[in-house]
Amino acid sequence: MKMIHIIFLVVSILFSTSNALTQDFCVADVKASDTPAGFPCKNAADVTVDDFVFDGLKMSGNTTNIISAAVTPAFVAQFPGLNGLGLSMARLDLAPKGVIPFHTHPAASEILVVLRGAITAGFVSSSANTVYVKTLRKGDIMVFPQGLLHFQLNTGKTHANAFVSFNSPNPGLQILDFALFANNLPSSLVGATTFLDLAQIKKLKSVLGGSG
Amino acid sequence: MKMIHIIFLVVSILFSTSNALTQDFCVADVKASDTPAGFPCKNAADVTVDDFVFDGLKMSGNTTNIISAAVTPAFVAQFPGLNGLGLSMARLDLAPKGVIPFHTHPAASEILVVLRGAITAGFVSSSANTVYVKTLRKGDIMVFPQGLLHFQLNTGKTHANAFVSFNSPNPGLQILDFALFANNLPSSLVGATTFLDLAQIKKLKSVLGGSG
Amino acid sequence: MKMIHIIFLVVSILFSTSNALTQDFCVADVKASDTPAGFPCKNAADVTVDDFVFDGLKMSGNTTNIISAAVTPAFVAQFPGLNGLGLSMARLDLAPKGVIPFHTHPAASEILVVLRGAITAGFVSSSANTVYVKTLRKGDIMVFPQGLLHFQLNTGKTHANAFVSFNSPNPGLQILDFALFANNLPSSLVGATTFLDLAQIKKLKSVLGGSG
Amino acid sequence: MKMIHIIFLVVSILFSTSNALTQDFCVADVKASDTPAGFPCKNAADVTVDDFVFDGLKMSGNTTNIISAAVTPAFVAQFPGLNGLGLSMARLDLAPKGVIPFHTHPAASEILVVLRGAITAGFVSSSANTVYVKTLRKGDIMVFPQGLLHFQLNTGKTHANAFVSFNSPNPGLQILDFALFANNLPSSLVGATTFLDLAQIKKLKSVLGGSG
Amino acid sequence: MKMIHIIFLVVSILFSTSNALTQDFCVADVKASDTPAGFPCKNAADVTVDDFVFDGLKMSGNTTNIISAAVTPAFVAQFPGLNGLGLSMARLDLAPKGVIPFHTHPAASEILVVLRGAITAGFVSSSANTVYVKTLRKGDIMVFPQGLLHFQLNTGKTHANAFVSFNSPNPGLQILDFALFANNLPSSLVGATTFLDLAQIKKLKSVLGGSG
Amino acid sequence: MKMIHIIFLVVSILFSTSNALTQDFCVADVKASDTPAGFPCKNAADVTVDDFVFDGLKMSGNTTNIISAAVTPAFVAQFPGLNGLGLSMARLDLAPKGVIPFHTHPAASEILVVLRGAITAGFVSSSANTVYVKTLRKGDIMVFPQGLLHFQLNTGKTHANAFVSFNSPNPGLQILDFALFANNLPSSLVGATTFLDLAQIKKLKSVLGGSG
Repeated sequence: MKMIHIIFLVVSILFSTSNALTQDFCVADVKASDTPAGFPCKNAADVTVDDFVFDGLKMSGNTTNIISAAVTPAFVAQFPGLNGLGLSMARLDLAPKGVIPFHTHPAASEILVVLRGAITAGFVSSSANTVYVKTLRKGDIMVFPQGLLHFQLNTGKTHANAFVSFNSPNPGLQILDFALFANNLPSSLVGATTFLDLAQIKKLKSVLGGSG
Repeated sequence: MKMIHIIFLVVSILFSTSNALTQDFCVADVKASDTPAGFPCKNAADVTVDDFVFDGLKMSGNTTNIISAAVTPAFVAQFPGLNGLGLSMARLDLAPKGVIPFHTHPAASEILVVLRGAITAGFVSSSANTVYVKTLRKGDIMVFPQGLLHFQLNTGKTHANAFVSFNSPNPGLQILDFALFANNLPSSLVGATTFLDLAQIKKLKSVLGGSG
Repeated sequence: MKMIHIIFLVVSILFSTSNALTQDFCVADVKASDTPAGFPCKNAADVTVDDFVFDGLKMSGNTTNIISAAVTPAFVAQFPGLNGLGLSMARLDLAPKGVIPFHTHPAASEILVVLRGAITAGFVSSSANTVYVKTLRKGDIMVFPQGLLHFQLNTGKTHANAFVSFNSPNPGLQILDFALFANNLPSSLVGATTFLDLAQIKKLKSVLGGSG
Repeated sequence: MKMIHIIFLVVSILFSTSNALTQDFCVADVKASDTPAGFPCKNAADVTVDDFVFDGLKMSGNTTNIISAAVTPAFVAQFPGLNGLGLSMARLDLAPKGVIPFHTHPAASEILVVLRGAITAGFVSSSANTVYVKTLRKGDIMVFPQGLLHFQLNTGKTHANAFVSFNSPNPGLQILDFALFANNLPSSLVGATTFLDLAQIKKLKSVLGGSG
Repeated sequence: MKMIHIIFLVVSILFSTSNALTQDFCVADVKASDTPAGFPCKNAADVTVDDFVFDGLKMSGNTTNIISAAVTPAFVAQFPGLNGLGLSMARLDLAPKGVIPFHTHPAASEILVVLRGAITAGFVSSSANTVYVKTLRKGDIMVFPQGLLHFQLNTGKTHANAFVSFNSPNPGLQILDFALFANNLPSSLVGATTFLDLAQIKKLKSVLGGSG
Repeated sequence: MKMIHIIFLVVSILFSTSNALTQDFCVADVKASDTPAGFPCKNAADVTVDDFVFDGLKMSGNTTNIISAAVTPAFVAQFPGLNGLGLSMARLDLAPKGVIPFHTHPAASEILVVLRGAITAGFVSSSANTVYVKTLRKGDIMVFPQGLLHFQLNTGKTHANAFVSFNSPNPGLQILDFALFANNLPSSLVGATTFLDLAQIKKLKSVLGGSG
């Protein structure tokens, strides 16, 4: 047996050497410069199981705010182990009447599972501007195609909670109100490109901290 | 020479047979069901050069409308030769003050070249809601990253004209105003998910033909 | 206002016609032949919100079986709305000591979120055969890189439950024991290619219904 | 044992049902219309191991022709089991002085392994028109980047033989001489677009069966 | 209102922090080493609108040369903002009888729009060596599939001008004459691999600066 | 002629400058940090033909070991020229009764060509656990879909030899026995997740150098 043992170890070395650089994973070195395909990899020798586990979604986000809701992301910035693996998650918490306002993810489709409460969710198609909307309850899942405007609204009487997954470690999140009203795009330009009334624009810019 | 000729023809047959099904291109059979990668291919024997040429962008679109502008697409639906080739084009015409209002292309980045006039174009980043805006003139090109909200506005005194290209035969086009106000999404839901005032919503729904 | 209304409708028609074939989504026509990129699309006119919502993960799977566990998938076969969108989900239920035995997903990475109980999960790297294993509790998430052998085991005292997401509508699921022992691969070949003892092989073949 | 057996079979059914449409492979139904991602799949129930094995490269191709060489492909058209799997092969046979003339594969990179003889192979970069050329012997491998012009020439005294692999089931093969001289592109146009002399063009058109 | 204002700002910070590393774009740091997916990203804080705008295609290229034509590229090397965005452009200027000789783009399909004059353009399929050729005029667009040999020739009486787009920030450009005659590939090897006569080869090598 | 010569050189410089950064290839700088898309590129000026040629598969691997077989890889780690090009190779040598035990390649499909001897090869589908197995002889090729368990066994009387190609420069290699028995995964966990008997596990751990 001993002989075999030794020989096998030799084989083992042979095989594992030959794969010394195999890329099973590529935990992000987030201090290095990003590339179009993701961050350079952390040294594999320094990788532990904790690089693949994330506990930042355990707790409800703080919903004491104007939207009565919170999005807690586990994207590559928060969870570097996702780098190069093509997916990520986030947690949604919505107090009663809480809302994740109209938004898009430029780089990913989304799948949502409701854990608690009643969430009315919907998206709008680009072709015919058709609305697909439904009230989801515990255990229901819904898919939102990449890049389309969608929303989630707590239409129940209790707190609601959901997990969402994306097919990108870095899906992006463009919230319509923030894109229009939380920056220095001049109100006249916002008006010309949205057909909203100036008073409406200025009101929301004031609330969201935009200028111009 | 004749001998060689014959032998070479044999080789020719050998090679070309071996590639009988090579897919240099896949002109869309638009009557067949689409797939996630595009339409099934038209029979290669029926393909002519006219499948690869499109003259639908020759003429200015009609800008006598409320946006004083027109988008004329050459996507796979209009130009089936693009199927599977990973790109498409469109023509923009803007009368003075004409605008292509805030919109996104869910499935492609865009590059624009100005042919005539002065076009003020901009996009908003999702990360920091930063606005990148500039007035472009003849010969200037600008790139708009995939999925981000952007607009084009004629800020010159003459008609303006541009061509845009996309890295998808089917980039999609989601116009913000149409997504929000040109369908039957109830005004109360629009309000709850955009923070716009109800009066504003109803006004635009009326203009754009939305209900609810 | 009426004039404007009419003009805007014309624009609306112009835009929406130009996108008549835009592929925001491609709900699977699962009766048609699959392609390498997924199923042909169901007619868009027949698509409703119910194509994007799935309630098959609401209930716990039946864990009264030898593994004391159940995997309930929401892949494209069960949830045709996922077709072409690049992601899917499944629900794991594990009675105490229940296990999802060593398995791989040939076509996707996986992200798991624990909803209840304590799940010890792990995967093995291909390069150095390193084991990454950890006991996860409610709210913890863990990522499993594409194609690597991994397992989930209920090491708590109560029922455990998790949701998993994949970055493919069709991730595949190859369970090691089933691949080796639940078919007609001759026992001698199984032995020669795994170094397991013949008695062990025959025992498991008997349990799992394999022959040869 | 019997009880366990039955329970396990139930589990087995559970798992395998859930994957009834899993796409481990997609053997081409070559009579159906191709799509940009490959052919629709043959019914899985009709697939046997013979769909994954191909014996068409066993024999040397006939090298009694003007190039004293033969290319025998195992692309998706010849070997439908490759459909959707992202690779293919071909066999090269070269009599002494035989040559695979300058050509490109529009859709794949190539890796070549010499089995017999001495093959001088080379490619030209697009950036600096740099030539990378070397004489390879038995067991040597060489890689040719996608889309670049390359050639293989028997510079030994014996028959030479190689296998080449591609990272596409349908790499394409555009042979320069055939593209220029084996069709009806008018000689004047060939001259204007290649700077070759008219006499040279007409000579090769005559050999290769071109007209115009 | 002030209270709401403050609360919303908190939300704003929450959201934007969570996306601090979201990759809307990845302007090339062209001094860093390239990767297979493109250059590492320039620091996002240093990015301005001018990274997304390029004015290098405004002016006609100099056509006082042997081909009476000029290609002016806006690839990632010239326009770093394209990095990772999957597209690029170039400008073609052709004096009467000017020509962009037979060439390929190894990494992209191309779409061309004529702005002025008459351009006869064509490509050759790899399968059957079929020629697809047509004379295009102002506003006509034509698509050239990835990797196939194609050309553009001014067959009108005036200067001609076109813009071309590619579905890669780095499409490559392999000009046939340069690949064959503008380097040190020995004339005998060129002859053996193209069947051109030695005199023809030496003549073009002399014109194009090749040696050997 | 001289005049023309000079002018053409000018054009030459024009074109080649414009492509100075074109990425025909990206030879790995293996000392730099890997990225999800592969290694950063070696400086193009330092690249020679030897970066694209590899002689490490010329010799038979040493088969004097317990599996009577050897796998000699030409992956990106051994052959940096493959970086970014999407393929790789390996050489299999099998003494009589030699075996490449059950294994997967997480990141690639595989195509195998037998050069000598008789190799019985097989893979197991994930959907129905169907075995596809066949004895291959010289010149036969077989394809193994990505991520599925497969094996190769010398069932002839002589040494056997094959070349395999992958559609990834870094396909990975997860050998079942090594993943289960050549690390510190506790035997009780191996048992719970494979249903193998403890004695069997301890026996193979002992042979393969595993602990726990």
